[in-house]
Amino acid sequence: MDLKPTKPLSGFIELLPAQQRFVDACAARMLGVLRTCGFSYLDLPAIERAEVLTDKDNWDEIETQMYLFQKGDTKMGLRYDGTVGLSRFVAGHLNNLTFPFRASQFSKRYRGERKQRGRYREFYQMDMDIMDINSLSTNYDAEIISVIQQTLNSVSEFIGDNYVLVGSRPFWDALFNYLGLTAEQKKEIFILIDKREKIDGAEFDAWLADILKDEGLESQVKSVFANGYEYFQNKSEELDAAIRELTEFMKKLSAMGVKNAKIDLSITRGLAYYTGLVFEFKLSEYPELGTAAGGGRYADLAGKFSKTKIIGVGAAIGFSRIFVTLAESGKIDLSRFESNVDVAVLVMGDENLPYAMSVLNDLRGAGVPSVAFLDTDKKFKNQIEYADKIRAKFSAIIGTDEVKNKQIALKNMTTGDQVSVTVPDAIKMIK
Amino acid sequence: MDLKPTKPLSGFIELLPAQQRFVDACAARMLGVLRTCGFSYLDLPAIERAEVLTDKDNWDEIETQMYLFQKGDTKMGLRYDGTVGLSRFVAGHLNNLTFPFRASQFSKRYRGERKQRGRYREFYQMDMDIMDINSLSTNYDAEIISVIQQTLNSVSEFIGDNYVLVGSRPFWDALFNYLGLTAEQKKEIFILIDKREKIDGAEFDAWLADILKDEGLESQVKSVFANGYEYFQNKSEELDAAIRELTEFMKKLSAMGVKNAKIDLSITRGLAYYTGLVFEFKLSEYPELGTAAGGGRYADLAGKFSKTKIIGVGAAIGFSRIFVTLAESGKIDLSRFESNVDVAVLVMGDENLPYAMSVLNDLRGAGVPSVAFLDTDKKFKNQIEYADKIRAKFSAIIGTDEVKNKQIALKNMTTGDQVSVTVPDAIKMIK
Repeated sequence: MDLKPTKPLSGFIELLPAQQRFVDACAARMLGVLRTCGFSYLDLPAIERAEVLTDKDNWDEIETQMYLFQKGDTKMGLRYDGTVGLSRFVAGHLNNLTFPFRASQFSKRYRGERKQRGRYREFYQMDMDIMDINSLSTNYDAEIISVIQQTLNSVSEFIGDNYVLVGSRPFWDALFNYLGLTAEQKKEIFILIDKREKIDGAEFDAWLADILKDEGLESQVKSVFANGYEYFQNKSEELDAAIRELTEFMKKLSAMGVKNAKIDLSITRGLAYYTGLVFEFKLSEYPELGTAAGGGRYADLAGKFSKTKIIGVGAAIGFSRIFVTLAESGKIDLSRFESNVDVAVLVMGDENLPYAMSVLNDLRGAGVPSVAFLDTDKKFKNQIEYADKIRAKFSAIIGTDEVKNKQIALKNMTTGDQVSVTVPDAIKMIK
Repeated sequence: MDLKPTKPLSGFIELLPAQQRFVDACAARMLGVLRTCGFSYLDLPAIERAEVLTDKDNWDEIETQMYLFQKGDTKMGLRYDGTVGLSRFVAGHLNNLTFPFRASQFSKRYRGERKQRGRYREFYQMDMDIMDINSLSTNYDAEIISVIQQTLNSVSEFIGDNYVLVGSRPFWDALFNYLGLTAEQKKEIFILIDKREKIDGAEFDAWLADILKDEGLESQVKSVFANGYEYFQNKSEELDAAIRELTEFMKKLSAMGVKNAKIDLSITRGLAYYTGLVFEFKLSEYPELGTAAGGGRYADLAGKFSKTKIIGVGAAIGFSRIFVTLAESGKIDLSRFESNVDVAVLVMGDENLPYAMSVLNDLRGAGVPSVAFLDTDKKFKNQIEYADKIRAKFSAIIGTDEVKNKQIALKNMTTGDQVSVTVPDAIKMIK
């Protein structure tokens, strides 16, 4: 019989125990921050109806990237982000939730796209959203940015410092109105801005010229990338309002304790549902990871599902993109995640097994991470090798004397020192 | 435009925040036990190659129940249990793992079967497995049972007591050999035993008669259900060996601290890959939940993937079946999971917002679960109502006086008492 492949499908993540412990430790800290910040954790289905996932408005690309399938008469697919399920859930539970509602998610998402650096087909994102009905102060946008920074700071020993770039969709809308562009031109420029980091300057200029066909307009748009909003102050009421919103917002970030924030109008977050301020977090030490987290404000989160207008501000941290990439990169010292046990219980002789099992039970009951080598057919040498390999801090060796004296021979695996002690005394020593 | 449905697909789980907090609290305790017991947590892909998932040997039924689909040329599907991915992973990493290897998983599984009571199409199982190469003492079977009982005991305040029934596949093999049955008869009797709880006694008898066509054989098989192995002592060496293994095993369970264990030879765990001892946990207070956890020993875990013989003992806890069912049943008092915040920060007047934001930050920084109502356009009455609705223990009310004095008005939401204190003093009072 041919053996089946042992590798996971391309683009799917599979970590070894020490890597997994590193990733889990990071997730636990970050989720702890979200709990302290009062976000309600939601665990929504990974499968949604196809009609819920696909939306011709502005996500055409998504459909080809999705995992869609059929079961009986029902077309369905795997979620590609956390927002689609969240909007459905909130629309369906308007009377069960208290607004403003803070929601967090930490779940697997699926995209069938071609695998590239740091892109996975199955990956975790950590989402946080704040939603209210009919109106929502931009103070909450500042809160979301503050909360993301706190989650990233909670693991700064691994990922270093972060900074946040803040953009404004209303600024661009106001600029395009001021410049008198057509709806088609507006859409094309947003596509172009979204691609800006991936193409070179000459290509950008040629593409922009092709859209605008007017050197005066071209230089005004390009001045935003060089000098920000500076040139566009006192040009139109709409522009002034957008600029004021943005500059006031930066003060709010400061009040919320956010560090390393600056305006960058080239941040637009693609063609997606964002309608207000948008932002992206980057890691100073890992520019190659790209955007660590991104989000913004959407004026009508659940319009597909409800006539009630739900306004939200939300963001997603690219969890797997950051932490799986780092776990696999060799750039992180994983040595302290190599071991998951304090004690390995070793047994000399089958007749001593019942006592060894009760010792194992007592250690675990006291919260001491412990395992036992329970195969007394194997040589004692194998048992000590096992304790070494799993990097147990101590071995609890049990032979006939130990059983007689109700003790264990506790061996410090680093120093080699060995003492005969009772289990309660051993627990004290280990802790 | 027609609105899209807000309900999840039938058979998919969606919990409200308080229910989710209950389920998460249970999972956290149980996973904590598995960590203390030295199990390495694995987070494997939810999608596997179709050839990995489908296996004609003895899982014919599974294929019709699976979510299978194609992306490009690759046929794939969603996992239906944790064992298939685990066996692939272990076979692929023989040199990266230390044996005996203890693995835990807690992940979503997918089965497209018809929805029935307590059966979901997307659900969590919590798996634990101990594996070794070429040989594995049944002491580890005792350990697995002990560990499951500890995880269930960690949430006994919600699910009450548990007990475990232990069966033996080798006993039945020995019995069938002693009775001289054909391979076809053996297989059919295992199918019948698996269905025993779902059919009535008369139907069972008729079905058994149809397989055996011999009253003497029928009464001997039936005597096992009435009197266990009693009648079959000293009948054949194979039977005696199986009985001895089982009775010795019950003593090991006792040494491992397992309570409420008894032999029940009607436990066979279906036609699946089990080859040795098998077991099922039940909850004394919730018989309607059926099997809370089940597992057993398999002689060749990864034969499909590797020529190396990996022997394992493993079990799965039906996590969603227990905890989601209870969360939705109304039988559990969820009141202590209703709130996820200690403090709601409320602001009177836009000019006091920067100070309020810094207070929010300080509370969160000190680990006090806190939220703020940051929409100062809304009336103060709305803000107090919000603090009430989310069941915050305290409100931190901030007006002009508080900003001037660098204090907060801390209101106990239960007693209504209000005091003016600094933030550090407030943190002490709350903790």
